[in-house]
Amino acid sequence: MRRRRVPDVVVRRLALYLRVLEEMGPGDPDRFISSQELGDRAGMSAAQVRKDLALFGEFGKQGVGYQARFLRDELRRILNIHRPVNVGIVGVGELGTALARYNLRRWAASDNYPFRLVALYDDDPAKIGTRVDALEITCASAIPTHARELKVKIMMIAVPSAAAQAVADLCIAGGVRAILNFAPCKLQIPPQVHLHQSDVSLELEQLAFYL
Amino acid sequence: MRRRRVPDVVVRRLALYLRVLEEMGPGDPDRFISSQELGDRAGMSAAQVRKDLALFGEFGKQGVGYQARFLRDELRRILNIHRPVNVGIVGVGELGTALARYNLRRWAASDNYPFRLVALYDDDPAKIGTRVDALEITCASAIPTHARELKVKIMMIAVPSAAAQAVADLCIAGGVRAILNFAPCKLQIPPQVHLHQSDVSLELEQLAFYL
Repeated sequence: MRRRRVPDVVVRRLALYLRVLEEMGPGDPDRFISSQELGDRAGMSAAQVRKDLALFGEFGKQGVGYQARFLRDELRRILNIHRPVNVGIVGVGELGTALARYNLRRWAASDNYPFRLVALYDDDPAKIGTRVDALEITCASAIPTHARELKVKIMMIAVPSAAAQAVADLCIAGGVRAILNFAPCKLQIPPQVHLHQSDVSLELEQLAFYL
Repeated sequence: MRRRRVPDVVVRRLALYLRVLEEMGPGDPDRFISSQELGDRAGMSAAQVRKDLALFGEFGKQGVGYQARFLRDELRRILNIHRPVNVGIVGVGELGTALARYNLRRWAASDNYPFRLVALYDDDPAKIGTRVDALEITCASAIPTHARELKVKIMMIAVPSAAAQAVADLCIAGGVRAILNFAPCKLQIPPQVHLHQSDVSLELEQLAFYL
């Protein structure tokens, strides 16, 4: 199956399955998990689990299930996080700073956290040259060359909506392959770049359902 | 169908359908949308759309589709956001401040944004009594009485992981019905409270797939 054709919702479920397997901890390295158990823990049906995983190969054995550690490693490989992925943040305001600290701490705390924050950008002269933890803030106008040199693959955009499209254009010029946009606005992105809109109001809406 | 039985993933799709309908704008009030078009725009199959919506009633007409404005209003009603929902934030650090400003601005900018931020909490004496925009920060230990008085239904927890469980306990004592937890830790929550874990690394993992 070609990657571009796989819908976001399937990829999201793969990430949830991986989360379940990681939360099981190291445990018994030979432990098996059934599609039923994996589905129960991830909030999906067993049939959905089998269908999603079958898109990427034959991981399970009929009547036995999946070898948990093997499936975890395979999911990491499928999700492209079996090796470090360089990420950056544009907009070092409150949200950008929080995102930076979160990523730097996760990276420092775990061998398994795949996202290596390598660049921070802002256009505020008062911020450029200052640091968040050990990481220096670079001028946003340098993104096309700087992000390419540092091989930034995913950029988080945490600037005001009015600035987000111009920033996205700089990121694309810098060879960024995917954008996680926190600004509540639609971005125009060429088809070879993948865009994900992060939206806390979508999460609040899901919770409101259960009120 | 009893609400508690509806899986998170279905509710998430409902919120995505609503997003599609809202992004269509006011337009022709009598416009119909097919399950195919709604699915295409939301990244789901037409069959999935029909199955999800059928859980909550008969909204469409065979061969015609759904009346867009009617479906939008019904989805708002199903998601419980047809009227304002009071929300609060615990932890007014970088992330909490960013969340506060985001919600206050969305609320001020749109008649349709349902989440009314009514309370901010922190345990730092230097912050208590100060404001984010017009909203004053209250001492976190007052949550059980203060959140109940202000009818806070959903609480966003943006404190360090080590403090998150104690904060969640205060929120539950304050009658909060749902928690959106940004701390990267598992919370113990009674079954009548709904918990959603907000996790930027899950979003990054989905993007890494497409690299």
